[in-house]
Amino acid sequence: MYFEDTIAALSTPIGTGGIGIIRISGIKAFEVASKIFSSGKAMDEIASHTVNYGKIIDSDTKEVVDEVMLTKMCRPKTFTREDIVEINCHGGLIVIERILELILKNGARPAEAGEFTKRAFLNGRIDLSQAEAIIDLINSKTIEGSRAAISHLEGNLSKKLRSIRKIMVELLAHIEVTVDYPEHDIEEITGENVLQNLILIRKDLMALAKSFNRGKILREGINIVIAGKPNVGKSSLLNQLSGSTRAIVTDIPGTTRDIIEEYINIKGIPAKITDTAGIRVTGDVVEKIGVDKAYKAIEDADLIIMIIAADTGILEEDTEVLKIIKNKKSIVMINKVDLVNENKIKNIKQQLNADKILEASVINEKGIEELEKEIYEMFYKGSISQNNEIILTNARHKHLVDMGIASINQALSSFEIGMPLDMVTIDIKNSAECIGQITGESIDEAVMHNIFSRFCIGK
Amino acid sequence: MYFEDTIAALSTPIGTGGIGIIRISGIKAFEVASKIFSSGKAMDEIASHTVNYGKIIDSDTKEVVDEVMLTKMCRPKTFTREDIVEINCHGGLIVIERILELILKNGARPAEAGEFTKRAFLNGRIDLSQAEAIIDLINSKTIEGSRAAISHLEGNLSKKLRSIRKIMVELLAHIEVTVDYPEHDIEEITGENVLQNLILIRKDLMALAKSFNRGKILREGINIVIAGKPNVGKSSLLNQLSGSTRAIVTDIPGTTRDIIEEYINIKGIPAKITDTAGIRVTGDVVEKIGVDKAYKAIEDADLIIMIIAADTGILEEDTEVLKIIKNKKSIVMINKVDLVNENKIKNIKQQLNADKILEASVINEKGIEELEKEIYEMFYKGSISQNNEIILTNARHKHLVDMGIASINQALSSFEIGMPLDMVTIDIKNSAECIGQITGESIDEAVMHNIFSRFCIGK
Repeated sequence: MYFEDTIAALSTPIGTGGIGIIRISGIKAFEVASKIFSSGKAMDEIASHTVNYGKIIDSDTKEVVDEVMLTKMCRPKTFTREDIVEINCHGGLIVIERILELILKNGARPAEAGEFTKRAFLNGRIDLSQAEAIIDLINSKTIEGSRAAISHLEGNLSKKLRSIRKIMVELLAHIEVTVDYPEHDIEEITGENVLQNLILIRKDLMALAKSFNRGKILREGINIVIAGKPNVGKSSLLNQLSGSTRAIVTDIPGTTRDIIEEYINIKGIPAKITDTAGIRVTGDVVEKIGVDKAYKAIEDADLIIMIIAADTGILEEDTEVLKIIKNKKSIVMINKVDLVNENKIKNIKQQLNADKILEASVINEKGIEELEKEIYEMFYKGSISQNNEIILTNARHKHLVDMGIASINQALSSFEIGMPLDMVTIDIKNSAECIGQITGESIDEAVMHNIFSRFCIGK
Repeated sequence: MYFEDTIAALSTPIGTGGIGIIRISGIKAFEVASKIFSSGKAMDEIASHTVNYGKIIDSDTKEVVDEVMLTKMCRPKTFTREDIVEINCHGGLIVIERILELILKNGARPAEAGEFTKRAFLNGRIDLSQAEAIIDLINSKTIEGSRAAISHLEGNLSKKLRSIRKIMVELLAHIEVTVDYPEHDIEEITGENVLQNLILIRKDLMALAKSFNRGKILREGINIVIAGKPNVGKSSLLNQLSGSTRAIVTDIPGTTRDIIEEYINIKGIPAKITDTAGIRVTGDVVEKIGVDKAYKAIEDADLIIMIIAADTGILEEDTEVLKIIKNKKSIVMINKVDLVNENKIKNIKQQLNADKILEASVINEKGIEELEKEIYEMFYKGSISQNNEIILTNARHKHLVDMGIASINQALSSFEIGMPLDMVTIDIKNSAECIGQITGESIDEAVMHNIFSRFCIGK
């Protein structure tokens, strides 16, 4: 695609650092650069893909603005498939502002968020899911998240989607030929044949859809809420779990840390633990303020760890919480088992109607290992070693895959009630259309705008 | 200088952005890079000063960590005069962390703050004042500050200092020859001759010393405090002055903004205005808490604008403030002159013992232009157009220049009281030593450590 304007932006984070990169892309990139860069060589004498020491000069005042390294990259072997100039300048805000000002004065315009990547997409260098993988890679907060993103960027998701779509398109062609040219000398597709294909397609799509929740957890960590009355051992549990912490997220400046949130690692995978200590969920305040917060935290949670103190047993407040978490993934931990006899524990267990019940004495480090193992089994079993598995991580993709599945289901239903073959083609077409939207084979401007506005300026 | 270890660090600001640069410098830079970078070309086939697309691979897991652009730069034409590799990766924190980890695992160690620049200095690529100019350039908050820094980086300060030092060294040599080899066939240096030279040197050094305060203002902006009782028109003045604001500093994220501080521009030069509205300086609380703050603000101020309301005249509180600011640069502004007759104004003026008194009616925009002009004359007159003037901006340099001047003064005194010529050489030597310390011709490890610890990591 041909763009008339040349765009420029700071591509490194805003802030003070050793180096800042200002990127210029477009037909006038070299022309703009030649007006502000002085190295003793003319711009067209500079070879492509070389870095060159020189000075940024304000031609009006002849003033040296900075000493820089300039990289010239000729299209089409560039990120945007346009001519690109990258200026590595000193990473000071004023310096960057001055150089950008000169660039804009000499014929470029400020790039919008994600505009370089958008051009890379529109010029066919990457597809849409790869473009989205770039911003996911940049924003990833976990190693697993970055792993999934780089895999998508490498085109693994695109390849998978294209292969599924190809089966659909071939199936469509086959059906159409059979229906439209029954006289044609081609093996006629049978109903059974179409059915089998549709089931296969659905199986592939459903595997992708299913990977999404795990993908979300890998990307963002598990969101765990610890519930329970005061003094049942919530903080002790948090401390025990943090013992093995190698803080990833907390190392990152700017991470907003609520006092009741803690980032920990469970067997190498990050988890955000929310302690509901501050949220009182008792009989009398159930309808009151604060409980909305508890509900919200529990609703958003991937896992609730409910702690019950063995010595006090299940109290009214516990019952309330147990009711709320009934439909969620949860582990009930009976703590302080060292303070009571076995009958008491048995008694508590009988009152509970929960899937997973663990006994613990957190203060004595009893039960922690079992808890971690349980969480690991619940969320990660099998997912860690399968590095090559394609995991859906993007909500837009998930939505389109779900829609694709719905269309296939529709086709299958039509098929089962005996509709003629050509009647199911519309559903298969819809499904193929949905899958094509993930990679951007068919895409509308509004969706595209929405996608690229998530990017940072300069990418 | 030969360094055994290879250093690596993120050179772009920490944060999320389009691109991050990881820099590796040292004898093993290419070896380390070759272990993690895959582009289809061996590292030694890659030409110097070229950028190369490829992948960062974790050799243990064969996993692709990121797609990057790698720049190889062979010594000595590099920033550190060592082999350098720069990896432009996606600007995500996890990605950067993973790549850095791989680099460190393969033979580099984390660079200390400013260590790349330190190597550039120790390897003779730049002198010490140029190294300091780099961090000043990065940290500069005003255009004038960045201008002074780039001028220093370009070596203009170094050149000036070297030329002064050269005169000293030649003078010393001349004196020594005259004293030690009176029989030598060289024009004997006379006392008058030495005196003239010393006076010239002192003049040069004093011009530099004098430039420092203006340098500080250019670098940091003028620090103005507006004083005066409530309702005399302080906020109106602030608004009027801000009217022409093109915010430079306030655009910068992370600038801490006190509610009583405002950044404005006065004829193109930034100024920080502190409104002492919150600080009550009245007769009864003079000794109390809060007044320390007012004292401190006034003490740190480059200029105090004291507003007196014409209708109320000079009250007791005003007298207190007028006493405090007596020894500071200040402008007294009689506001609300439209509310009173000329006699009243004359009367107020007679009671004032101030250098600069302006009449104003801020709300009617009367007196603002005069105020701005007055400030401009006070601080900038002559300094703006002299772009080529060398301005001292660094406190360390100022201190050394002051010490250099003190030694020259010492020499002049010795001279005047009739000490023999060779007795003044020690003072001239001291002075030359001080000036040499600015450019790093003589420097001790502790000073150097102190200088480079001001740098950011990765520069």
